[in-house]
Amino acid sequence: MSTQKPAIPKGTRDFSPEEMNRRNYIFSTIRNVFEKYGYQPIETPAMENLDTLLGKYGEEGDRLLFKILNSGDFLGNIQKSSIGDMSLTEIAGEISEKGLRYDLTVPFARYVVQHRNDITFPFKRYQIQPVWRADKPQKGRYREFYQCDVDVIGSDSLLSEVELVQIIYDVFSKLDIKTGIRLNNRKVLSGIAEYIQAPDKFTDITIAIDKLDKIGLENVNRELMERGLSDESIKKLQVFLSSDESTEEKIRKMAELLKDSGTGSEGLEEMRTLFDRLKILGIEDQCEFDLTLARGLNYYTGTIFEVVSKDVAIGSICGGGRYDDLTGIFGLDGVSGVGISFGADRIYDVLNALDSFPETATVSTQVLFVNFGDQEERYILPVAQKLRAEGIATEIYPDAVKIKKQMKYADQKKINYVVLVGAEEIESGKLTIKNMKTGEQTKSEIGQFIRHINENHQEPGAH
Amino acid sequence: MSTQKPAIPKGTRDFSPEEMNRRNYIFSTIRNVFEKYGYQPIETPAMENLDTLLGKYGEEGDRLLFKILNSGDFLGNIQKSSIGDMSLTEIAGEISEKGLRYDLTVPFARYVVQHRNDITFPFKRYQIQPVWRADKPQKGRYREFYQCDVDVIGSDSLLSEVELVQIIYDVFSKLDIKTGIRLNNRKVLSGIAEYIQAPDKFTDITIAIDKLDKIGLENVNRELMERGLSDESIKKLQVFLSSDESTEEKIRKMAELLKDSGTGSEGLEEMRTLFDRLKILGIEDQCEFDLTLARGLNYYTGTIFEVVSKDVAIGSICGGGRYDDLTGIFGLDGVSGVGISFGADRIYDVLNALDSFPETATVSTQVLFVNFGDQEERYILPVAQKLRAEGIATEIYPDAVKIKKQMKYADQKKINYVVLVGAEEIESGKLTIKNMKTGEQTKSEIGQFIRHINENHQEPGAH
Repeated sequence: MSTQKPAIPKGTRDFSPEEMNRRNYIFSTIRNVFEKYGYQPIETPAMENLDTLLGKYGEEGDRLLFKILNSGDFLGNIQKSSIGDMSLTEIAGEISEKGLRYDLTVPFARYVVQHRNDITFPFKRYQIQPVWRADKPQKGRYREFYQCDVDVIGSDSLLSEVELVQIIYDVFSKLDIKTGIRLNNRKVLSGIAEYIQAPDKFTDITIAIDKLDKIGLENVNRELMERGLSDESIKKLQVFLSSDESTEEKIRKMAELLKDSGTGSEGLEEMRTLFDRLKILGIEDQCEFDLTLARGLNYYTGTIFEVVSKDVAIGSICGGGRYDDLTGIFGLDGVSGVGISFGADRIYDVLNALDSFPETATVSTQVLFVNFGDQEERYILPVAQKLRAEGIATEIYPDAVKIKKQMKYADQKKINYVVLVGAEEIESGKLTIKNMKTGEQTKSEIGQFIRHINENHQEPGAH
Repeated sequence: MSTQKPAIPKGTRDFSPEEMNRRNYIFSTIRNVFEKYGYQPIETPAMENLDTLLGKYGEEGDRLLFKILNSGDFLGNIQKSSIGDMSLTEIAGEISEKGLRYDLTVPFARYVVQHRNDITFPFKRYQIQPVWRADKPQKGRYREFYQCDVDVIGSDSLLSEVELVQIIYDVFSKLDIKTGIRLNNRKVLSGIAEYIQAPDKFTDITIAIDKLDKIGLENVNRELMERGLSDESIKKLQVFLSSDESTEEKIRKMAELLKDSGTGSEGLEEMRTLFDRLKILGIEDQCEFDLTLARGLNYYTGTIFEVVSKDVAIGSICGGGRYDDLTGIFGLDGVSGVGISFGADRIYDVLNALDSFPETATVSTQVLFVNFGDQEERYILPVAQKLRAEGIATEIYPDAVKIKKQMKYADQKKINYVVLVGAEEIESGKLTIKNMKTGEQTKSEIGQFIRHINENHQEPGAH
């Protein structure tokens, strides 16, 4: 066999031990918060049947699905001679019936319907798994990446929204990332479209005002005009596009403006309840009622969430919303749900930019025993085992090579203590211990050494 | 869109919260042991380039690879009119350039070569990820399943073998599974083939004697005859096929028999050292020197490992070996490695059969607050938050529905305590608490309740 230059598909990544430890720190922080609120994990297969996935993400999404070639005689259903008359989509349909998961939401909907008789509703689940998209790879956009989704399904209580805001607050507090939590409600946006007498222009309005942050008021107004809104409508809209008021003032003002819209009033009442509960919990000042937040309106029917970092301009690091009919497509109607998704890759980038991964997220081995040869190895084997029994990550260097090489290994792996056991130590029963941070070298009995480590270091890898 | 009956591809599985908790218990036990020995995690992409995978698993393996259809115009390189003249393999080669990971070993070899300048050798890594094989699905055989691999690469020290046996022993002790650890060495098998004067029949001999357990001595001898071994060779082989002796006796006897085989003596010396170290560690009686163990001889060059459950007949639950040239195919020669792989699915089945998943592997929420309506909800929100701040997984039922329904929810989710807070409790400041196991109902202040839980329950989800 010839030698190959090793490489991985573009848009995919290997994760080194250091990256893994940091990623695991993020995942375990998120997971611990989810579990503290009673959410339970599920997992679904990487492959789904294509008829589960197709048509759920729009035309663009269908195009970005990774399709799996049928195994065995994949051309079995096709006359080779008739291929000339078939379209690409038709051919793909014949030679591929499975695809890779594109997100966690559709598989979750499929899961809920398929297992509905075994599920306790309201079903509070979380799911942390990779998804795959045949997107053009670019900085910060990958073809394989993890999503961390948390959803409640089977209840339309606003308490779920409250809880999701609490989860957002807890996760980012623990990660030490300062965030702005933006909240809005699709029904309020509908009410606004009614108020400005352009309910048929709902999509145009939301697409335009969602860009306020990026392009500014003047350009939003120009775009609204280009999208066919009347001067009158645009004029009436202005009152909603200034955001200096407090949430309370905003709700009061809006209640008056939207009082003739049933949908608008309903949405506003939902926002009032949500903020009332957040105030009781003391986290309402972390949240902003943002009338220009208009993401995911193809599927969200109520509350909309978006979270941004205050210190690093990287876009949304978490988002979600309420959807009223996620499971309908799989035959289960009338089930309301609400959920959010944490963007692990962007959170990683934020922590990196802030240099605020804690030290424990990189710790590995704590103690390395230097290998001086056969006799010493036989002596230290049970000694190292005592340390491990105390939960201390411990290695013995496998080969009796030059001590310099062994020390370099300890250095590169950021090991805290190197233990040297030669003839003298075997005779005295005391270990020679080098503290790799201070350079200090001491002699100590094993029990004393264990107590020293337990007092000075957290247990590593607590994930 | 029409309604679909939801299903997943055959050979794949969904994992429910209960299954997830049990699987996570297995994974976290394994991971914690790996880390205690200084192994560090890596992850590689689900997709590898097909030229990384093809030709590494034999013809059978090539056939079982899941191939991914190129995105966009996958027929781009093919003249539709020429398809009639192409073989399936040729067509697949044109329309697919990526495949799903078939195991963790080849991606690991690729990883080591690709990142060799950033890696500290000897490199001790573990990897817990799913792999995919287009095998015919059947009981206990899946198309998507997890492997848990742990390897040292860049050292030929037998200390690595010792450590892997320690890891096996630790993992299964912690999981409370009684095991037999079988060890052998390819070089010893070579020595035996030399001794019986049939070195050219090495593969035939090992294939036959590997079946001793299953088909018995008589059938092994018949197969050896059918495979063309002389009566003389078969007769000389018999002394290796009885296994009543202790390891020490076996090594003594073998040393005499294999003294003229350089390779055989070398392998035997390795086994002697390995068992010497295991004896020092007090775990040699867990291990058997099994001369009929002959798995993976296409790639293993030294020690061979296999672990079976003593209580559940399910085949190998862990296995591995030393390989001398894993990375050669990717251009890095002369790097020796040794590794083992834990079969998470079979371990799951063993624990299930023994009914020995610990209770902590199924615990979820600890406390549920019943929802009596708006005013009560506003009161209990910060109370529930106090419990969570103490690390206690807590839910508030989202809707003010009938209490019977809320209690049923607590019951199905196996929640330990249900807290009832109505007008009376709000006035008195004491919570009414129902212990769901004993049925006992008490009144308690929040601080008292937290102390009670912390004293009586482990923190859940400690994985």
